[in-house]
Amino acid sequence: MRRLLVGLAAAALAATMGTALAQDKKTIGVSIPAADHGWTAGVVYHAERVAKKLMEEHPNLNVIVKTSPDPASQANAVQDLETQGIDALVILPTDPDPLVNAIKEVKAKGKFVALVDRAPSNNDDSVRDLYVAGNNPALGEVAGKYIAETTPNAEVVIIRGLPIPIDQQRQDGFDKGIDGSAVKVLDRQYGNWSRDDAFKVMQDYLTKYPKIDVVWAQDDDMVVGVLEAIQQAKRTDIQYIIGGAGSKDMIKKVADGDKMVPVDVLYPPAMVGTAMELTAAGLIDQVPVNGTYILDATLVTKDNAEQFYFPDSPF
Amino acid sequence: MRRLLVGLAAAALAATMGTALAQDKKTIGVSIPAADHGWTAGVVYHAERVAKKLMEEHPNLNVIVKTSPDPASQANAVQDLETQGIDALVILPTDPDPLVNAIKEVKAKGKFVALVDRAPSNNDDSVRDLYVAGNNPALGEVAGKYIAETTPNAEVVIIRGLPIPIDQQRQDGFDKGIDGSAVKVLDRQYGNWSRDDAFKVMQDYLTKYPKIDVVWAQDDDMVVGVLEAIQQAKRTDIQYIIGGAGSKDMIKKVADGDKMVPVDVLYPPAMVGTAMELTAAGLIDQVPVNGTYILDATLVTKDNAEQFYFPDSPF
Repeated sequence: MRRLLVGLAAAALAATMGTALAQDKKTIGVSIPAADHGWTAGVVYHAERVAKKLMEEHPNLNVIVKTSPDPASQANAVQDLETQGIDALVILPTDPDPLVNAIKEVKAKGKFVALVDRAPSNNDDSVRDLYVAGNNPALGEVAGKYIAETTPNAEVVIIRGLPIPIDQQRQDGFDKGIDGSAVKVLDRQYGNWSRDDAFKVMQDYLTKYPKIDVVWAQDDDMVVGVLEAIQQAKRTDIQYIIGGAGSKDMIKKVADGDKMVPVDVLYPPAMVGTAMELTAAGLIDQVPVNGTYILDATLVTKDNAEQFYFPDSPF
Repeated sequence: MRRLLVGLAAAALAATMGTALAQDKKTIGVSIPAADHGWTAGVVYHAERVAKKLMEEHPNLNVIVKTSPDPASQANAVQDLETQGIDALVILPTDPDPLVNAIKEVKAKGKFVALVDRAPSNNDDSVRDLYVAGNNPALGEVAGKYIAETTPNAEVVIIRGLPIPIDQQRQDGFDKGIDGSAVKVLDRQYGNWSRDDAFKVMQDYLTKYPKIDVVWAQDDDMVVGVLEAIQQAKRTDIQYIIGGAGSKDMIKKVADGDKMVPVDVLYPPAMVGTAMELTAAGLIDQVPVNGTYILDATLVTKDNAEQFYFPDSPF
């Protein structure tokens, strides 16, 4: 009889604890683009890496990561996550404006929404609680300043991205960075953030300009195309190239002391992880996280490269 | 003999693991003001609360919290933390400018520095890696907008803080918030963020103005003095009071549906915990955290008050 009572008490205790645990269980849904190029491949890698870490650190936290190739399927993914019963949504939109309605539906149900990187035209707290993004003007400015300080008389060719606002912000930042120096910009053509297009633009530059000191390509994927064009042309006048983002291969070159890639400027795909960490901190540890968080465009040098190096990442 | 070998192997394994664990051990030093008034009492509470949570979540993390009553002793505290061997410093300065040198010394040794709330005149990445702060212009704007929307013809008295820049930012924000409405500001006097001074200023207002609709006191401590003055004068014309910060007592009134305190505007002392969470996330989970993080001045209403309520906090 005594044994039975103890057994019943234990069962009751287990049931009570089970209920308490179930009540405390929190779920974060993470909606990101599919790995359609280097940077988004990095986003997928870091979202999955940080999801695993957060679940290890918080036994009552569940993190679901969903990737989507386009806005229409991402809107469905957001709806799916909502149906599964999430407490918070972290979203890096494939394209923000077509996703505003899907995001607002989640927010209208009282769920926390963290928006990463790509902001809709109307980016205020009616759309999201937290906004985490890189710093596009600073990405250009940091590169420009480095060139002005390191090679004050450099003749520079620039490979732009696509003709959209963030590219313009980077260009304006660069011009601010070299302002007052003797750095001369020879040319600025669009390379569309594509390795192949950057290769072609660089081939043109090499034909057109007999002497080039520095290339600012503002994107690590494009640097790969630039390096290949220089190698094929066997040109030895180019002193160095500056990219941007913080890809594994470029960070490795910086860490190894490669003279052609002495620095990189950070616009890290791991920022999705930063938003996930904050979302978890707000849900579980009750710290205030609503706000706007602009990450620095940190200059990556031989000295600090190690902390931005992820050997297992695809990017 | 076999037993001995197994024993030795186990000992060797334990020693190896011990070394690995010792290497992974990280220490965060947190330097904050002593609890000299309500808001800083909240800072101390949340720093200690989040330190405990972070150490539970990360077995290899040590968090040391030190409080200091003035800049000179805080500079010593920072030096002490540095001597104890920290990997990162989270600092909410008593007064930022006199502490710049102490902070820069820590940063020069390659340690991560997170600065909270109070920024020195030169607040760039030469002083800190991460800056977390509240939003003073928005604190005023959110209050102004609430009044303009809720009581569009209100006659308002304002109790200011001290004549320093953040008070001016709050006033400018408020004026932006009521811009275009019929809200009329009757008076603006300094209450020095003090309960007693706010009590006196409110007594003057009650003598001077026969009809007052709304009081904007922009600080929860001052609201306590305002409520007392109204009660003593037995005035029934005042419809409501808006404070700011998010003190336990005011959040409780909002949650309970107190008609005199229908809302509050957040400028949370728990922001020190946000900076601590990010510092831990950067050190342990390797997410990018260098940047500038401005927290929203969230409008606290009956609907969301619960998430900002800490019954055990002194503030």
